[in-house]
Amino acid sequence: MSTTLEAMREVAQRAKAASRVMAAATTEQKNRALQRIAAELRARTVVIVAANALDLADAKASGKNEAFLDRLMLDPSRVEAMAKAVEFIAGLEDPIGEVTESWRRPNGLEVRKVRLPLGVVLMIYESRPNVTSDAAALCLKSGNVALLRGGSEAFRSNRAIADALMHGLSSAGLPTDAAVLVPDTSRESMLALLTLDGLIDLCIPRGGEGLIRFVAENARVPVVKHYQGVCHVFVHAAADLEMAERIVVNAKASRPGVCNAMECLLVDEAIAATALPRLAQALVAKQVELRGCEKTVAALRSAGVPVTPAAEADFGKEFLELIAAVKVVPGLEGALAHIARYGSEHTEAIVTGSRDAARRFTREVCASAVVVNASTRFNDGGELGLGAEVGISTSRLHAFGPMGVRELTAQKFVVEGDGQVRG
Amino acid sequence: MSTTLEAMREVAQRAKAASRVMAAATTEQKNRALQRIAAELRARTVVIVAANALDLADAKASGKNEAFLDRLMLDPSRVEAMAKAVEFIAGLEDPIGEVTESWRRPNGLEVRKVRLPLGVVLMIYESRPNVTSDAAALCLKSGNVALLRGGSEAFRSNRAIADALMHGLSSAGLPTDAAVLVPDTSRESMLALLTLDGLIDLCIPRGGEGLIRFVAENARVPVVKHYQGVCHVFVHAAADLEMAERIVVNAKASRPGVCNAMECLLVDEAIAATALPRLAQALVAKQVELRGCEKTVAALRSAGVPVTPAAEADFGKEFLELIAAVKVVPGLEGALAHIARYGSEHTEAIVTGSRDAARRFTREVCASAVVVNASTRFNDGGELGLGAEVGISTSRLHAFGPMGVRELTAQKFVVEGDGQVRG
Repeated sequence: MSTTLEAMREVAQRAKAASRVMAAATTEQKNRALQRIAAELRARTVVIVAANALDLADAKASGKNEAFLDRLMLDPSRVEAMAKAVEFIAGLEDPIGEVTESWRRPNGLEVRKVRLPLGVVLMIYESRPNVTSDAAALCLKSGNVALLRGGSEAFRSNRAIADALMHGLSSAGLPTDAAVLVPDTSRESMLALLTLDGLIDLCIPRGGEGLIRFVAENARVPVVKHYQGVCHVFVHAAADLEMAERIVVNAKASRPGVCNAMECLLVDEAIAATALPRLAQALVAKQVELRGCEKTVAALRSAGVPVTPAAEADFGKEFLELIAAVKVVPGLEGALAHIARYGSEHTEAIVTGSRDAARRFTREVCASAVVVNASTRFNDGGELGLGAEVGISTSRLHAFGPMGVRELTAQKFVVEGDGQVRG
Repeated sequence: MSTTLEAMREVAQRAKAASRVMAAATTEQKNRALQRIAAELRARTVVIVAANALDLADAKASGKNEAFLDRLMLDPSRVEAMAKAVEFIAGLEDPIGEVTESWRRPNGLEVRKVRLPLGVVLMIYESRPNVTSDAAALCLKSGNVALLRGGSEAFRSNRAIADALMHGLSSAGLPTDAAVLVPDTSRESMLALLTLDGLIDLCIPRGGEGLIRFVAENARVPVVKHYQGVCHVFVHAAADLEMAERIVVNAKASRPGVCNAMECLLVDEAIAATALPRLAQALVAKQVELRGCEKTVAALRSAGVPVTPAAEADFGKEFLELIAAVKVVPGLEGALAHIARYGSEHTEAIVTGSRDAARRFTREVCASAVVVNASTRFNDGGELGLGAEVGISTSRLHAFGPMGVRELTAQKFVVEGDGQVRG
């Protein structure tokens, strides 16, 4: 352990030193680096795809499934998409130096809150190599240093991408230690990094629940968690059923593998007899398998819609595929109780024409995004207008919901006076 | 361990259940509870002071020093001050439900960010019993539940204060589990509480560095740290010396035992010959012991001002008494380098008439408060206009600087549409 710890400490110390330079970098410098990184990614497409082919061959040989291979795979069009994402981030507003509030005290002191970078951000992620350039670009734009600890299965791909980062930074006169791929992908090195309180200012784990729990349990550095999304859509008695159908289908079936997809449909018992068969039929038409509560099963069977009885474990479950749990609830009260018990504080939606129901739902539901009459799929940095995101926080501390460049900053107080002293 | 863990889990589970009720409590209900708590504190003055006398007697018997006894001691006027503080907090604006930003997306979705409570806040603190009512009141006002884990030396005092909290809450129809004194003050129970991720949303340790490090190293729950303040005042070449003298004396000597007091004076070498003797003399007149760098010692001895040579350990040290380190630095650049190396990111001040120097200092110094031409002592929730504070965060995550009721909240996204789905 101690050699690994020393090696990781040295990486983090260099990152910390670079973070002082990055905090003072101008917007122009940072944008020049981002433009150069995009150019370097394009220029290196062949090299990156070749490195990725080696990672892919190993993954295939070790029997990884199709979904895994698809997350890992890079082709020229995906490299182009990575370059475009970096350019997009270059175009975002620089959050550093932004004055978010200011006021004057009775004694004449002028107080303002000013955004500054967090410092060194450790990204821990699994197989998607595009996270390497996305996360580095978001950190760079916000004046932070990115320590990138990708999965071993993507190491050659990540290294080829990190070369582009390094060249982009140095050609803009910024330290190459500002975006560093951790050279050691062992679990031991991850554990070592997680102990470096004082050198690493924030850790953002991205990946499966197992990885995130491991990080949360072992970290001595601050962690913002991005856990699973067990998202509900509640179709209230006063819902427009045509709208409800559109929203439910979009929330479940437009991209079932992502965290803002609907996992459970709640239907108000007051309209269950008509709404349930219609909504269920629409989901089934999109190849969704339904797992219903007792009332749901009774109603759907008599309407001839295929459904299987839900097990208790189907509620509160993140399926991430074309499966949905369905439950009939006794009105708004029942929906609030179900969500409080089974929700994951990620995204919760209501479909209703009632102003009172919407108000109560938005006030009482605790989730990073509470949605009225729209799809859960909008809980996303791009869709909500934050630009790109490093992830969606489901912990309330520091950031709750999509984390863009502003969420990668802190705020300091700047106090200006003309000689004031405290009485 | 397992019985303690189970007992602490049960306390935290009740707190979590109460946090749902508190999140929905109205401003009026919360204020009524706070007014009742203030009244209960006043009505129980004799009981509280009597309980405190027992704590004090034990502390004396175990040989605690005067400063410790003073922190622990309650008399009727201190109880009155506690009641007044609770009333003051009742008068603050309720942060819950505040819309901090709102915008409309091109597709017509309306997005707003709305403040909600963090949930369950665990306060870990040492001997000052007033923290029990102060922290509970700040948590209550911000819709949070306070788990109060005070020191064993103040347990009887804290219990008497907690009785007032309980009665105040119940007479306003709020759950008594919303402000709970942890009944077990063992280290084992503290460790158990620190593992309850998912039940405790934030831990705020207040006290000596040892306690804070212990919490940071052992916590599985999020911690906002309130470390020491190693605060500098840099007197720049372009400073008004009369102003500098006033600020330096106030920063060091007005209350040397607090975290926003100056610990180290930095003097620009360009004006050292005149400024140093004048500032040093003013400090010495206030009984401050000076520990100087080589140049300081040479200059002060020839001016006949008493000074001892500083050891390396005197720089970066939090004296918390009438001692100050003094260093001559080569201009702004030298001050920035010294602060980056020895500062604690708490409070840093410059005295200067130069706009350029002030701009660079405020931009480049990383500290929760960066002060120009005023005393470091203004880094305080009340002085900066935040109302009361639970402490001053020196970590950049979630909050940096004084934490008032707004810093005890998170923000969720509320998204309203009229049937939008994602393409």
